[in-house]
Amino acid sequence: VQRFLVTRLGEDWIFLVLLGITMALVSWTMDYASAKSLQAYKWIHVELRGNIPLQFLAWVSYPLMFILFSSLFCHLVSPQAIGLFSSRSGIPELKTILRGVVLKEYLTLKAFVAKVIGLTAALGSGMPVGKEGPFVHIASICAAVLSRFMSFFSGVYQNPYCYTDILTVGCAVGVGCCFGTPLGGVLFSIEVTSTYFAVRNYWRGYFAATFSAFIFRVLSVFNKDAVTITALFRTNFRMDFPFDLQELPAFAIIGISCGFLGAFFVYLNRQVVLFMRRPNAMTRFLTKYRLIFPAVVTLVIATLTFPPGFGQFMAGELMPRECISSLFDNFTWTKISGGSPLPVGLGRSAAWLHPDFWMSAVATTMPIPSGAFMPVFILGAAFGRLVGEIMATLFPHGIVFDGILYRIIPGGYAVIGAAALTGAVTHTVSTAVICFELTGQISHILPMMVAVILANMVAQGLQPSLYDSIIQVKK
Amino acid sequence: VQRFLVTRLGEDWIFLVLLGITMALVSWTMDYASAKSLQAYKWIHVELRGNIPLQFLAWVSYPLMFILFSSLFCHLVSPQAIGLFSSRSGIPELKTILRGVVLKEYLTLKAFVAKVIGLTAALGSGMPVGKEGPFVHIASICAAVLSRFMSFFSGVYQNPYCYTDILTVGCAVGVGCCFGTPLGGVLFSIEVTSTYFAVRNYWRGYFAATFSAFIFRVLSVFNKDAVTITALFRTNFRMDFPFDLQELPAFAIIGISCGFLGAFFVYLNRQVVLFMRRPNAMTRFLTKYRLIFPAVVTLVIATLTFPPGFGQFMAGELMPRECISSLFDNFTWTKISGGSPLPVGLGRSAAWLHPDFWMSAVATTMPIPSGAFMPVFILGAAFGRLVGEIMATLFPHGIVFDGILYRIIPGGYAVIGAAALTGAVTHTVSTAVICFELTGQISHILPMMVAVILANMVAQGLQPSLYDSIIQVKK
Repeated sequence: VQRFLVTRLGEDWIFLVLLGITMALVSWTMDYASAKSLQAYKWIHVELRGNIPLQFLAWVSYPLMFILFSSLFCHLVSPQAIGLFSSRSGIPELKTILRGVVLKEYLTLKAFVAKVIGLTAALGSGMPVGKEGPFVHIASICAAVLSRFMSFFSGVYQNPYCYTDILTVGCAVGVGCCFGTPLGGVLFSIEVTSTYFAVRNYWRGYFAATFSAFIFRVLSVFNKDAVTITALFRTNFRMDFPFDLQELPAFAIIGISCGFLGAFFVYLNRQVVLFMRRPNAMTRFLTKYRLIFPAVVTLVIATLTFPPGFGQFMAGELMPRECISSLFDNFTWTKISGGSPLPVGLGRSAAWLHPDFWMSAVATTMPIPSGAFMPVFILGAAFGRLVGEIMATLFPHGIVFDGILYRIIPGGYAVIGAAALTGAVTHTVSTAVICFELTGQISHILPMMVAVILANMVAQGLQPSLYDSIIQVKK
Repeated sequence: VQRFLVTRLGEDWIFLVLLGITMALVSWTMDYASAKSLQAYKWIHVELRGNIPLQFLAWVSYPLMFILFSSLFCHLVSPQAIGLFSSRSGIPELKTILRGVVLKEYLTLKAFVAKVIGLTAALGSGMPVGKEGPFVHIASICAAVLSRFMSFFSGVYQNPYCYTDILTVGCAVGVGCCFGTPLGGVLFSIEVTSTYFAVRNYWRGYFAATFSAFIFRVLSVFNKDAVTITALFRTNFRMDFPFDLQELPAFAIIGISCGFLGAFFVYLNRQVVLFMRRPNAMTRFLTKYRLIFPAVVTLVIATLTFPPGFGQFMAGELMPRECISSLFDNFTWTKISGGSPLPVGLGRSAAWLHPDFWMSAVATTMPIPSGAFMPVFILGAAFGRLVGEIMATLFPHGIVFDGILYRIIPGGYAVIGAAALTGAVTHTVSTAVICFELTGQISHILPMMVAVILANMVAQGLQPSLYDSIIQVKK
């Protein structure tokens, strides 16, 4: 095996390096473009302050423009790139391909262009859509195209067995350089796409994903976004006493609740998809004028999150990444307000929870490239934070241990909630690893793994995973 | 698949939980007993201060007693438990079994008792032997015995296919609860034992290993060793600026050098083993009087590490776990001495490096249950620390970035060195994960993964892994 590994790696390390570099560049460019777009969005919003109608118009039309562009572009360039009203993510399709089904025109350069441009536009619109799912698809296309290109020089890339290997590595790189989490990326891609797995692919995925994540993070250092290579959503919890044993029941409750929530999310998503596929007057109408559905969804969501309107109750002006940073932050919201601790802190987390839940479930059904991972992640973080704030309210003076008083860290609960809910929705346990890599802290490892396992047990008993659910619907 | 997973887990979660609890108890008891023994060892040494001959006698005879007891006990109870002059670890044998070869009397209750008692005595002697390898064997025996016990109630445990699954989970639990690193445990056991791997075993391993590590850590909280659940060798590096990009070449150098060092270690170990197997007068003599070899090795090592003698140049009085803590600590040794920074700091790390290297390579060939993981880990940490101290000497004022001065953290280099060298010796990349879990910090993730990959590339090109090397010798 080792001998085989070495010779194989000697042959295709060029392939892995090229794949890694390409995807890192794509990922970074996408992040950069969408971040600039979101900056412009906020800037317009701030500049128009005082003129509410105009502000509202800008707030609604800006994402609308992007979403419509994304939808139209994808449809014109490569309709295969986005399924018809069912999956925008790409992971279910990849799972199908890896099981041996041939999906025509799914891994072409055209689809690549459509997905990259469409996803960038969707991310730049500020809608609750994720990057992970489509990005996995992009990386797989990139791997497939690259391997065709490489086959001019060497014959190894032509046999179908090798094709599976290449796609598996593509998945790993996709997840890995999406957020700069190589390790979690490899494990997540294994869990999501495979049933049996060759250990040599683990090695190759690890190599390519590390390289890719490395370039991805170095690029942001060069761009002065970060001073050095650190985690994307770095947390700063105390490490000497991350949590007390008495807090464990709360972590277990988060896990179990996230299991139920995750199953409910999958159920909701499937109902929306099934409703869209049912042949009646309305869906026929929507299929004919395919821009109407995303337009309506965008309008409704943008209207509801408009900061001076309902948005003030649901942190509407925070962009997804800012949401995560503020959910993971290191102080207790209940403390900030001083006088009336209860309503403010709890309200803030509850506010996120409720609208974000159905919004994500609906937004991910729009015919644009969009993943469910990030919205679910935020959702889980909000739920965990809610539990954490409740705990902080119940024990306002923290937990006394050996005469020293330790405050409860609601941010830690948020991290655990995020891992548990994404784990429940995707039926994976490696979301815990992704969380460690995203936050750069591993101090909550044991409670997080317990919560993820509990969430998985509940969710697997109730519903298939989000990806399997979509595969079932498609059949 | 998911359905299958749920029903399977429903059936055997009792098995997984029982396995987890048993192994956690065994692991904790072993740690407790050997820690007490080491305490007694140090206490005797301190009490006899002033009387050098008596002190020397105690220093040498104490480990001698334990090693002889361990060797004799294992030989009498179950000679199969320890191979004949070749492998004390158990991982090579498991790899062989998982490939379908039947090794007689290898997974019996007798072997279990022999290994547990023998390993505890070996660890308690203070010799440079590790816990990981034999512990994997112990966990597998436990899993096999438990499954035979469970088969009274249910028929599932009788088919041979299931047997492989059970042993795989046993390996995962073994690595996982050895140091309380569930995630790294699962990945390490996959990489070391399998070529193709079923994802459902990943799930089961994750479940059992988490449970086991959880109980293991909770036990030490109850015993007041720790205030709460934290990492075993918790480090405390700054997280806002863990390293500068300019330090990356140094990390790469660690990786590549560790690759060469690892290959050399494997080579050395094999030469010792091969020499022992060659039929000449000396080996015949040693085989006849089998206690002489361990006695001589113990005598030599104990004599050399005697603190008032040569030991003062090689930190002889530090027990393995204290070594790691002090190698990972958070200040620069070169700073401590003030006036003459160079020799002290470098000397301290170099001192560890040289004798520990050949001692570990020889000590792991003694006919007692002993693993190579921990000695190699310490070795790698010492080497990394050496590079780190050299860096700190070259840049005594740290690295200036954006007007702020950041000191170099040699402890971070030590962690990276440990991961890279263990990775090189075992040909795995998941040692990086084990390192994160052991230290409780993930801030050095990218350089560590790069170093581990480089070390693997070099080592895989030069030598088989330590375990494959032993398998080859046995053939």
